[in-house]
Amino acid sequence: MKTQRRMIRLGAFLVAPGYHIGAWRHPHAHADGGLDFGHYRDLVQTAERGKFDMVFLSDGLGVRTPYRDEEELSHWGRSVQFEPLTLLSALAVSTERIGLAATASTTYHEPFNIARQFASLDHLSAGRSGWNVVTSVTDAEARNFNRQTQLDHASRYHRAREFMEVVTGLWDSWEDDAFLYDKEAGRFFDPDKLHILKHQGQHFSVHGPLNLSRAPQGHPVIIQAGASADGQDFAAQWAEVVFTAHQRLDQAQAFYRSVKEQVVEHGRDPEQVKIMPGVFPVIGRTRAEAEDKYAVLQDLVDPVVGLGLLTWLLGDVDVSGYPLDGPLPELPTTEGSISRQQLLYEKARSEGLTIRELYHSVSGGRGHRIVMGTPESIADELEEWFVNGGADGFNVMPPLLPDGLDEFVGLVIPELQRRGLFRTEYEGTTLREHLGLNRPRGAGQRP
Amino acid sequence: MKTQRRMIRLGAFLVAPGYHIGAWRHPHAHADGGLDFGHYRDLVQTAERGKFDMVFLSDGLGVRTPYRDEEELSHWGRSVQFEPLTLLSALAVSTERIGLAATASTTYHEPFNIARQFASLDHLSAGRSGWNVVTSVTDAEARNFNRQTQLDHASRYHRAREFMEVVTGLWDSWEDDAFLYDKEAGRFFDPDKLHILKHQGQHFSVHGPLNLSRAPQGHPVIIQAGASADGQDFAAQWAEVVFTAHQRLDQAQAFYRSVKEQVVEHGRDPEQVKIMPGVFPVIGRTRAEAEDKYAVLQDLVDPVVGLGLLTWLLGDVDVSGYPLDGPLPELPTTEGSISRQQLLYEKARSEGLTIRELYHSVSGGRGHRIVMGTPESIADELEEWFVNGGADGFNVMPPLLPDGLDEFVGLVIPELQRRGLFRTEYEGTTLREHLGLNRPRGAGQRP
Repeated sequence: MKTQRRMIRLGAFLVAPGYHIGAWRHPHAHADGGLDFGHYRDLVQTAERGKFDMVFLSDGLGVRTPYRDEEELSHWGRSVQFEPLTLLSALAVSTERIGLAATASTTYHEPFNIARQFASLDHLSAGRSGWNVVTSVTDAEARNFNRQTQLDHASRYHRAREFMEVVTGLWDSWEDDAFLYDKEAGRFFDPDKLHILKHQGQHFSVHGPLNLSRAPQGHPVIIQAGASADGQDFAAQWAEVVFTAHQRLDQAQAFYRSVKEQVVEHGRDPEQVKIMPGVFPVIGRTRAEAEDKYAVLQDLVDPVVGLGLLTWLLGDVDVSGYPLDGPLPELPTTEGSISRQQLLYEKARSEGLTIRELYHSVSGGRGHRIVMGTPESIADELEEWFVNGGADGFNVMPPLLPDGLDEFVGLVIPELQRRGLFRTEYEGTTLREHLGLNRPRGAGQRP
Repeated sequence: MKTQRRMIRLGAFLVAPGYHIGAWRHPHAHADGGLDFGHYRDLVQTAERGKFDMVFLSDGLGVRTPYRDEEELSHWGRSVQFEPLTLLSALAVSTERIGLAATASTTYHEPFNIARQFASLDHLSAGRSGWNVVTSVTDAEARNFNRQTQLDHASRYHRAREFMEVVTGLWDSWEDDAFLYDKEAGRFFDPDKLHILKHQGQHFSVHGPLNLSRAPQGHPVIIQAGASADGQDFAAQWAEVVFTAHQRLDQAQAFYRSVKEQVVEHGRDPEQVKIMPGVFPVIGRTRAEAEDKYAVLQDLVDPVVGLGLLTWLLGDVDVSGYPLDGPLPELPTTEGSISRQQLLYEKARSEGLTIRELYHSVSGGRGHRIVMGTPESIADELEEWFVNGGADGFNVMPPLLPDGLDEFVGLVIPELQRRGLFRTEYEGTTLREHLGLNRPRGAGQRP
């Protein structure tokens, strides 16, 4: 009975003042946008006008960039920003349909608190919340939470898996129709429809129930972005949206197939997992105009900032002792993001890049695909991946805000709509409905 | 130069569907109000129309009432509600001037996360946030955080004190004018104005800095309600608003003097700590009408609910094995709220109350002062405490919402304004300005 045409899913990755690390220095940038609510409200309303499935906020539990001192750090343009759950709760009031997804770490929170805040956001937004599940990968964050160094990779994922069991179990504390509000009988809920978790595990002991009724979406949408073997397996088990980073279609296709196969191995429907690679769009009336825009941003990258970014992306591996114009050295094993380190190492080797060239190559897309050109050529590039098994949609990372989002909504989305690849109006009201994801059954409702 | 008349401070204690535990069964009650954003938005806008200093949300990290099974629990009318920080963030968008205060526990959160969310709320609301600092006192909450029983009283306060050092230190990570946004020089902030905490203590090791710039209020307003000896000393050191519960003026005066003296002993200005007892107003056109309203609510208290409430207020001491119409037995020492247990024990003894009479006596005010009568008589009662050294203001706990708040704003506040005891318009824009509290100096700005 499935007659609807498959449509591209779009997320808007919003980080003030833009995804490019030089963006804050651009004349159009709101350099203080990270703590300007009006700036974010305008951005999200623009994304909603463009019919994006969701906006997406990344996060870190601290000032994560590994600069060696305050002087170096002072050149970095995004050391302060709103905390995502408070910001999205405020944005819920300023919007009506668009999904609201935030990153939160399983490493330095308690599952009860996370389950509660995302369920609360789902109630506040009438079913528009999404949670990007991450493990925290930097020592800078560990030092804010009673540790000197980050947890090792395997321990982070072990904790994350049990964290998900607890959180989803808490979300199912109450059946959808548990609350009776029977004033006459003095019966607030039906006790047969309360399911107390009583989780006892290796990392967590959590009794429950959650003190919120079941969320409008049942569960907030689960998003995940880990690309290592552990990360892919985690995604296959838990994720409904997978953010990923690929430069070439063949890589994207291989990842897409691999994750969907693993999803099937976990007994899940592969159509219920949407693979959304990041794209960094640079939009011009001509290719040359787009290239000029990019060059302007690249010129704004301070070498101190570029080198710090590289250290961070390599998983806290400091390469500042090596010549900037020499090759990337052999790298020690990281306990940070393994997949990202490998991606960069292979890129440097295969393209013969110096350290300076390498950091310049990631100052914009940070390993994500750069799509540069006219609205038509960018639509071509998105369509190619979408129709050839590389993507179910894209996480759009505007280089500079608000300009990059205004251009995408004003120029690229209409082109995708003309091609019948993207909605012209929201059909549903919840993020699950936008993404074509089923509402999870609750406890007591298993078939 | 101080010429302004001293004014009453007012907080609106909002818990849907009202402070009285029978309220949810009242015909006017929004029984599902705990998760109805529109209900809270209307309430807060009403409080803002009444020029309240702030609204206040209590909180618990779980379904806290110690009912013995799901059947008993199902008679209790407030097992689900919004999480306060997400709710207040949404309410910040729906209001312009009123303060927004939420309860958060130092027992089961990490100080970095709490510092961040309250600072974020302060930025979102342009300086209107307040934090009611509590320690968690029930086993029901402990069981949601990897424990079987709550922490003992002394350990909770020891942790809370260090928690405050970390949080306030993180709030002072950046000086007020640290951010330069100098695009030309590529200098985001002045490195001399960054102060990294590097806290190493018994409970916490937190490096910093916080990844938000200094809050509009410097620090969100610190509220505290512990009334035990530990609680009073904590308040004297840290609190700027003290919530408290007293039945008689002489008790309120003794508490008021004691806390202000301890504030001075801590080297602080006693005018910078506002003592605000709770009041539970039952408002009628006549005394008899108010008494009838109260009787209607009292009749809605199910014995199961009343007994459970009593168990909870006695600090998880279960008295359900004793005859309902007999006296309260001798009580074992609690690791819960010592002050609340003593208050109830003394009340039962001095008034010769049975267990049933005791739970009925707290079903409304829960140990807070019940002010019942006409708008004029209620204004008299508030004025008496205010002018005679019993209170700097009041935390108003409407029995039933929205009715009780509508009546207070429509009838009692105009009476207080006629007497020159309460503002007729907001003079400032921040919660600190409403309350007459100084903005804390930051690091590097000490005199």
